[in-house]
Amino acid sequence: MLIEPGNLLKGIDSPEDLKKLDQAQLVKVCEELRQYIIDVVSVYGGHFGASLGVVELTVALHYIFDTPKDQLVWDVGHQAYGHKILTGRRDDFHTNRVYNGLSGFPKRKESEYDTFGVGHSSTSISAALGMAVANQYKDDDRQHIAVIGDGAMTGGLAFEGMNHAGVSNSNLLIILNDNCMSIDPNVGALKEYLTDVSTSHAYNKVKDEVWKLLGKFSKFGKSAQEVISKVEGSMKSLLLKQSNLFESLNLRYFGPVDGHDVHHLAHVLNDLKAIPGPKILHCVTVKGKGYKPAEEGNATKWHAPGKFDKVTGEVYKKVNDAPQPPKYQQVFGHTLVELAEKNDKIMGITPAMPSGSSMNIMMEAMPDRAFDVGIAEQHAVTFSAGLATQGLVPFCNIYSTFMQRAFDQVVHDVCIQNLPVNFCLDRAGFAGADGPTHHGAYDLAYMRCIPNNIVAAPMNEAELRNLMYTAQLPRDGQAFTIRYPRGQGVMPEWRTEMRKVAIGTGRKISDGEDVAILTIGHIGNYAIEAKEELAKEGVVPAHYDMRFVKPLDEELLHDIFRNFKRIVTVEDGCVMGGFGSAVLEFMAQNKYMAQVEILGIPDRIVEHGTQLQLHEECNFDPKGIAKAVRLMLETSPVQSPLT
Amino acid sequence: MLIEPGNLLKGIDSPEDLKKLDQAQLVKVCEELRQYIIDVVSVYGGHFGASLGVVELTVALHYIFDTPKDQLVWDVGHQAYGHKILTGRRDDFHTNRVYNGLSGFPKRKESEYDTFGVGHSSTSISAALGMAVANQYKDDDRQHIAVIGDGAMTGGLAFEGMNHAGVSNSNLLIILNDNCMSIDPNVGALKEYLTDVSTSHAYNKVKDEVWKLLGKFSKFGKSAQEVISKVEGSMKSLLLKQSNLFESLNLRYFGPVDGHDVHHLAHVLNDLKAIPGPKILHCVTVKGKGYKPAEEGNATKWHAPGKFDKVTGEVYKKVNDAPQPPKYQQVFGHTLVELAEKNDKIMGITPAMPSGSSMNIMMEAMPDRAFDVGIAEQHAVTFSAGLATQGLVPFCNIYSTFMQRAFDQVVHDVCIQNLPVNFCLDRAGFAGADGPTHHGAYDLAYMRCIPNNIVAAPMNEAELRNLMYTAQLPRDGQAFTIRYPRGQGVMPEWRTEMRKVAIGTGRKISDGEDVAILTIGHIGNYAIEAKEELAKEGVVPAHYDMRFVKPLDEELLHDIFRNFKRIVTVEDGCVMGGFGSAVLEFMAQNKYMAQVEILGIPDRIVEHGTQLQLHEECNFDPKGIAKAVRLMLETSPVQSPLT
Repeated sequence: MLIEPGNLLKGIDSPEDLKKLDQAQLVKVCEELRQYIIDVVSVYGGHFGASLGVVELTVALHYIFDTPKDQLVWDVGHQAYGHKILTGRRDDFHTNRVYNGLSGFPKRKESEYDTFGVGHSSTSISAALGMAVANQYKDDDRQHIAVIGDGAMTGGLAFEGMNHAGVSNSNLLIILNDNCMSIDPNVGALKEYLTDVSTSHAYNKVKDEVWKLLGKFSKFGKSAQEVISKVEGSMKSLLLKQSNLFESLNLRYFGPVDGHDVHHLAHVLNDLKAIPGPKILHCVTVKGKGYKPAEEGNATKWHAPGKFDKVTGEVYKKVNDAPQPPKYQQVFGHTLVELAEKNDKIMGITPAMPSGSSMNIMMEAMPDRAFDVGIAEQHAVTFSAGLATQGLVPFCNIYSTFMQRAFDQVVHDVCIQNLPVNFCLDRAGFAGADGPTHHGAYDLAYMRCIPNNIVAAPMNEAELRNLMYTAQLPRDGQAFTIRYPRGQGVMPEWRTEMRKVAIGTGRKISDGEDVAILTIGHIGNYAIEAKEELAKEGVVPAHYDMRFVKPLDEELLHDIFRNFKRIVTVEDGCVMGGFGSAVLEFMAQNKYMAQVEILGIPDRIVEHGTQLQLHEECNFDPKGIAKAVRLMLETSPVQSPLT
Repeated sequence: MLIEPGNLLKGIDSPEDLKKLDQAQLVKVCEELRQYIIDVVSVYGGHFGASLGVVELTVALHYIFDTPKDQLVWDVGHQAYGHKILTGRRDDFHTNRVYNGLSGFPKRKESEYDTFGVGHSSTSISAALGMAVANQYKDDDRQHIAVIGDGAMTGGLAFEGMNHAGVSNSNLLIILNDNCMSIDPNVGALKEYLTDVSTSHAYNKVKDEVWKLLGKFSKFGKSAQEVISKVEGSMKSLLLKQSNLFESLNLRYFGPVDGHDVHHLAHVLNDLKAIPGPKILHCVTVKGKGYKPAEEGNATKWHAPGKFDKVTGEVYKKVNDAPQPPKYQQVFGHTLVELAEKNDKIMGITPAMPSGSSMNIMMEAMPDRAFDVGIAEQHAVTFSAGLATQGLVPFCNIYSTFMQRAFDQVVHDVCIQNLPVNFCLDRAGFAGADGPTHHGAYDLAYMRCIPNNIVAAPMNEAELRNLMYTAQLPRDGQAFTIRYPRGQGVMPEWRTEMRKVAIGTGRKISDGEDVAILTIGHIGNYAIEAKEELAKEGVVPAHYDMRFVKPLDEELLHDIFRNFKRIVTVEDGCVMGGFGSAVLEFMAQNKYMAQVEILGIPDRIVEHGTQLQLHEECNFDPKGIAKAVRLMLETSPVQSPLT
């Protein structure tokens, strides 16, 4: 389906074309850009609300600044659709987030206008500061702009960046895109503060008012004037130096301004160009701006709604004939509440992903026991550790990719202290369309190397429930990490009775001979399909679901290594240091010798696509597994010479 | 040498004993406590300045609060010596930081007064908030106090914790111990802000003054009063809600107070007990307070001076007959400047460890090219990535243990984008006396699993220089990680000519037969010693320094696996997923079969001690390596049956 851009947008193949327009035409450009995003996303899917909210800002930035010489960093980046469309990617934009198509995020490989690859939040200030410092050192005359949302501003990294920016004299402009939302509504003290600043007590208004009022005292004579001058002196230092969170950090603060007034934005940005040093412009925007259903409806739903009818605002849902398995996310959310109803020690923690992780179910059912702590993975983990010291049973749910940001807290605050904290790593393995920044590729490796950490992955819904049930039973220390993928499981009837799983035990799925397939997690279902394919050829490997990467089921492994000389391991995680490596370590420690083939995510960056496309690409889809078994049967292990 | 505590201190075996004293006696207690710390540390070594700085605070806290029921979290924790001495550990205090002795940091296993194990900075607010929220939920009536330095406050985690604390109604008291120092002088905008607040423009003074002055207007009649009331209204909202960084985050701010006036502190703390909700008390203290040489001298030197003459303040230095090898740290610092003099693209970055890492040498020589970004590891890495996008060559030096905190930034901002950033991981392997929170145990595992990351470790000074030389040559993407231990190398004549090392190449150290020893990094020198021991028995294994954990030297490994059926790998890193696992992965991929024994840090928390003590404990000291070789020769590999 060809989507026709508006007349002005049609002529914009780069920001240079945009700059040729009269400023008066910008409103029309914004209108067309917004419409184009609505047209494309409604048909092809993608992130939505965030990009609509920054249409005017995007147009104004490329109109005023000399991109790509001036360098623009979009924090998180799912608001950069307008930026992509204006920077030469309009006609490819329908391939957004599709295998081999455009990335859903800015990406250096894709365009020189994408100065920094993003995906995780709160990186833009540090990155843009690095660029600004570099160009200052090189004596290059460039502007550096970081556009960061109020949600991303709660991430500690953003604060670290501001703390450094405030003492640099670099030419850095931070634009705070304040829509009171990240994906879910933003939380925390900073959000309340920003709301305060940008609503009735608007900072500038108060400042002006106070000056005006003090002025009136002049008529009361000299002694009054002296007093006034003292008050003014004191207030000036307060108001100008300390009266604002950002000015506390030595960033000049401007705003708040209406982020949907493109003329005013262009005007302000132009003025700011001439003001040297680190500064912040506070823009107030509306997520989903210009598309009624998104503006008025549930902003979380319209963050990335999928395909929809752009006229009625109806989001298309797949209609299935048969009952479908639930998503692992849903199983997590409902099971947690089910467990928490019986165990009053259970607490839930999510860093800004209540709806994505389904923690919102517990937040609604038990608001005093479930916490959205904002985009703050580090805090989420250490806060959970604090809860655990008091005998509570925290379930801290963090996307696998985001847990990377709390690695030290897992090591230092949980595992070194041997505290029984439960981690549920959502979206483990390939994230799909979100691509490499969001793949949960490394968790098995980076969690496995930490002592006092149980690491497990369920093969299906019932297993997830059993692992969660087990994790909430009293135990003597140790973190308990459960990782599962984004998307559907395999059990339409998923509300199984829960039972305890012995820690460090796997299970045999099916008998076989010649080759043993060892899988971990959901990907084990691929092995079942592979076996079906191989059975047609008369090849019947055995299949084991190891369930725990750590501790490994040593009894089961002894049994396997005693009986099989050919072993294939399968994981949807990196092959370097992951589950397969753990099996090799067992083999070496126990002096077995077998031919082991490790299937998993290779040691390179895998781009975006559907999960299945990426599994195929990496050869651990059902066909890939079958092929590995066949190959293994064809070749015989090489022996080292005895020396 | 027995060290006698003062008369009052002698009677304090727990805070209960302290509480029995008259408040008037607290000054004397402080004096004795300070003297005891000076006496013990001057003889036995340890951290120094930080604990002296909080003597009064420590005494006041335990006097006023009902510890351990009330819960005290010491951020970082090297200021907790006074706390340890007052909480039943006085007579064991001379074993501080010694193998099997007391930990240099608070530790849950050690005492119920140590509510949270610490070591890395900026965790206290999150941890104490977790405790406070838990106790609120359990309806327990406890107070929760986090004591955090101004340096630790720059860490993003502290900000994340405050952002959450500000919207909780938990009973949390944050005490900001502001001495303008972490280990090195604190940097960043926050530090400037705090200095501002606590010096001439002292916040409270201004606030009081303004109120007083406004009061004087009342005599000017009704219209003046109206104006005043408006001004007051506006100002109140400004002053009380927005006029302070911390109040911006919804924390009630008190202070600054003199942190060395124990009576005033006791008084203020007592008042704060009755004030509900999250609040912050700003204490101004002097690092090294009460010990003249430390107060007046170089605070960095007195952070942890080693043993010293407490009368003259002379720090004892080992006198050696022969020239000694330098520390790896010194080699790094001098070599970086040497390289930077020739390559003007090189930039240096350290997160708050300029003297520890020797980055201070470059900061002094080239102040515009070397940056201390504060306790902000995440920012250090993303900032370096920003520099690299502009064609500069950053050397980002972070202690191995602290790099855990920037794991996501290495993955997301550097390696996914394939940016040529150089990481130098200092204090890799066992940190020694600092113990488990500071061991750099996991870096080989967590760095190796990331694509686009070269991971190397030098066996000696010349190798470190060669690797650094190689890392600054132009290359096409890829991070370059060089990890080395704390302490001395092996080459008194270390200023060798630098030469390029081919990426991914190891080297044969010595020929041998029957067994091949594969080492990585400095620990390779142990293998040389082991060989000497074994030679006496007629056993001559071969020895290879692999140099790169990633990419592995495949040519060399093919050669090794073709010639040896028995292989011992040695690393001062975790065995799970580390260097040995990499060798196993190579073996499996290439269908070799050999008996491989992996020596390294076992999968448990290893406590503190000297590096050699810990290496012995973990069986990879020279004797341990020799033993492993012997054992391997005695046993023959088990073969799996052919099925």
